Amino acid sequence: MSVPPIGLHVLLDLHGVEPDLLSDLARIEGVLDEAARAAGAHVLGGHFHPFGPGLGVTGVLLLAESHISIHTWPEHGYAAVDVFMCGKAEAMTAARLIGERLQALRIELRECARGLRDGRLTG
Amino acid sequence: MSVPPIGLHVLLDLHGVEPDLLSDLARIEGVLDEAARAAGAHVLGGHFHPFGPGLGVTGVLLLAESHISIHTWPEHGYAAVDVFMCGKAEAMTAARLIGERLQALRIELRECARGLRDGRLTG
Repeated sequence: MSVPPIGLHVLLDLHGVEPDLLSDLARIEGVLDEAARAAGAHVLGGHFHPFGPGLGVTGVLLLAESHISIHTWPEHGYAAVDVFMCGKAEAMTAARLIGERLQALRIELRECARGLRDGRLTG
Repeated sequence: MSVPPIGLHVLLDLHGVEPDLLSDLARIEGVLDEAARAAGAHVLGGHFHPFGPGLGVTGVLLLAESHISIHTWPEHGYAAVDVFMCGKAEAMTAARLIGERLQALRIELRECARGLRDGRLTG
């Protein structure tokens, strides 16, 4: 990869999201794409799977800097999102934008460092 | 989705992996596929991107139960793997198998609960 293996992985749990939004594949693809660009990341490809009308979607944007993934459950108003970005891309910018665009009533956000830091092997 | 939004997300950082293995796309796809099946998960599709001969790969298996992703840096002997599985699929089984198959010298593993537990909204 062209970007260094030092990254921030943001685990984003979104609660209280409008069900219609969580089954709207085109809208979700658009939000993730906007988030990737806002973070300065480069999209290699998007792959999404709808589970059927009114049901959830699952998908991922593969990035030169790692990935953004989403899995939604409209029946629970819940979405599990991951924003994992290495190099200079700004994962938190993308994560915040996704939370805003999906208008979650409650957002839980965990930050996990990944990869190599200071030239040493750390987790 | 057909499976409940209760899941285990395993963040797996693999260090000291043979560089040739980390640039071998077919081998990596095979390992992830084997891991998904061992965990009892159902593969919806696999999407992988090689960065070039001798360089890293990035990719994801989309699952009915969420996803497995991998990003590799042969030049650092490092791979960042995620195993996120909801429902009855066994994420730890998949994570352990991936660590073994890639013969990592050092494995760092973090478990993160995702989704709804006991019918209440928790992270």
